[in-house]
Amino acid sequence: MRWEELDQQPCSLARTLAVVGDRWTLLVLRDCFLGVRRFDEFERRLGITRHVLADRLKKLVEHGVLTKVPYQQRPLREEYRLTERGLELHPAIIALVSWGDRHMVDQRGAPIQHIHKGCGQAMRPVTVCSECGEPVGARDVRVEVGEGWRDAADEAAPPVPLHHRTTR
Amino acid sequence: MRWEELDQQPCSLARTLAVVGDRWTLLVLRDCFLGVRRFDEFERRLGITRHVLADRLKKLVEHGVLTKVPYQQRPLREEYRLTERGLELHPAIIALVSWGDRHMVDQRGAPIQHIHKGCGQAMRPVTVCSECGEPVGARDVRVEVGEGWRDAADEAAPPVPLHHRTTR
Repeated sequence: MRWEELDQQPCSLARTLAVVGDRWTLLVLRDCFLGVRRFDEFERRLGITRHVLADRLKKLVEHGVLTKVPYQQRPLREEYRLTERGLELHPAIIALVSWGDRHMVDQRGAPIQHIHKGCGQAMRPVTVCSECGEPVGARDVRVEVGEGWRDAADEAAPPVPLHHRTTR
Repeated sequence: MRWEELDQQPCSLARTLAVVGDRWTLLVLRDCFLGVRRFDEFERRLGITRHVLADRLKKLVEHGVLTKVPYQQRPLREEYRLTERGLELHPAIIALVSWGDRHMVDQRGAPIQHIHKGCGQAMRPVTVCSECGEPVGARDVRVEVGEGWRDAADEAAPPVPLHHRTTR
C-alpha cells in the first residue's frame, strides 16, 4: 500500500489519516483549536518552512477541514478557520493530548489545562458509549464487519483479521 | 522545529506525535487493536516494506506501547502485544476512526462496526467531561496554561497563543 492510496482503503482510520496523517498536519490543527488563524502565526509557532505549511493548509482546505476567510480587502488577506467538519476532529486531538498528558509529561505536569466551560473544572476527556453512556476502553469493544466493508475489493488486506470476524 | 525534536516541546500533542505520529505507526496500532500480533501478518496487511515495519515496531516497543512476547522457543519467535500504555491509545484511535466513519465513507457506510460488549449495541465514541460527565466538543473547552508550561524554555513558540492565556 502506498501512503497516497490510504483514502481508498476500506478503513476509516486509513481514510482519516489520508486527511490529517501527514507530518505537521495535526500540529497545524492543534494551533487552529488554540485559536491561531493566520499564516504568519502558524509559521512562527511551528517553525516549519513556508512551503510545507502552505501545502498542509491547502490540503486541509481542500478536504473541507479549514476554510479561508478574508480579514482584509486591500490587499486581500485571508485567514484559516475550522469548519464544522474540522471542529469534529476535536475528540481525536484531545484524546491524543490526554495520552501525552498521562504518559509524556515530566514532574511538572501537563503544559496545558483544559477547562470545561460547562462546569468550570479542569477536565480530561473520557470516552463513553453513544448507546448506554458507560465508559469504554480497548477491552470493552469488539469489531464486526460493517456494510461498507462487504463490497471492498481488497480481500487480500481486509480491515478485520479473520479471527476477529466472529465474536470473541 | 524539527520533527525529531517534537518530544522536547511543552505540548502533549507534540510529545504524543513523537511516539505515534510517524507515517504508518497509527495503522500498525490499528492492527494491534484488531488483534494482529505477528510480523508477517502486519506486513501482509499493511503492504509496507519489512524495513519500515520493523522500524515502527521497534520504536513502539522502545516507547513502551508494545511489548515483545515469545510464542515459540526453538527457534525463538516473538509477537507484539499492546501494553497498558498502548491500550490507553484506544480513545484516540477510535476517535479518529469515528471521524472517518462520519466524513470519509461512501453510501455503503462504515467498513467496521464497533460493538460495546457491555450493552451489546453498535456504538460510536462520545467524549465527555471527566468531572461532570457532560458531552464536550471543541466549543465547550477553553485552555489555560498548566504547571508543565511555566518553566518551558521556548517562550518564542508557546503552546498557548497570547490571546488565549485569559478566559475567552
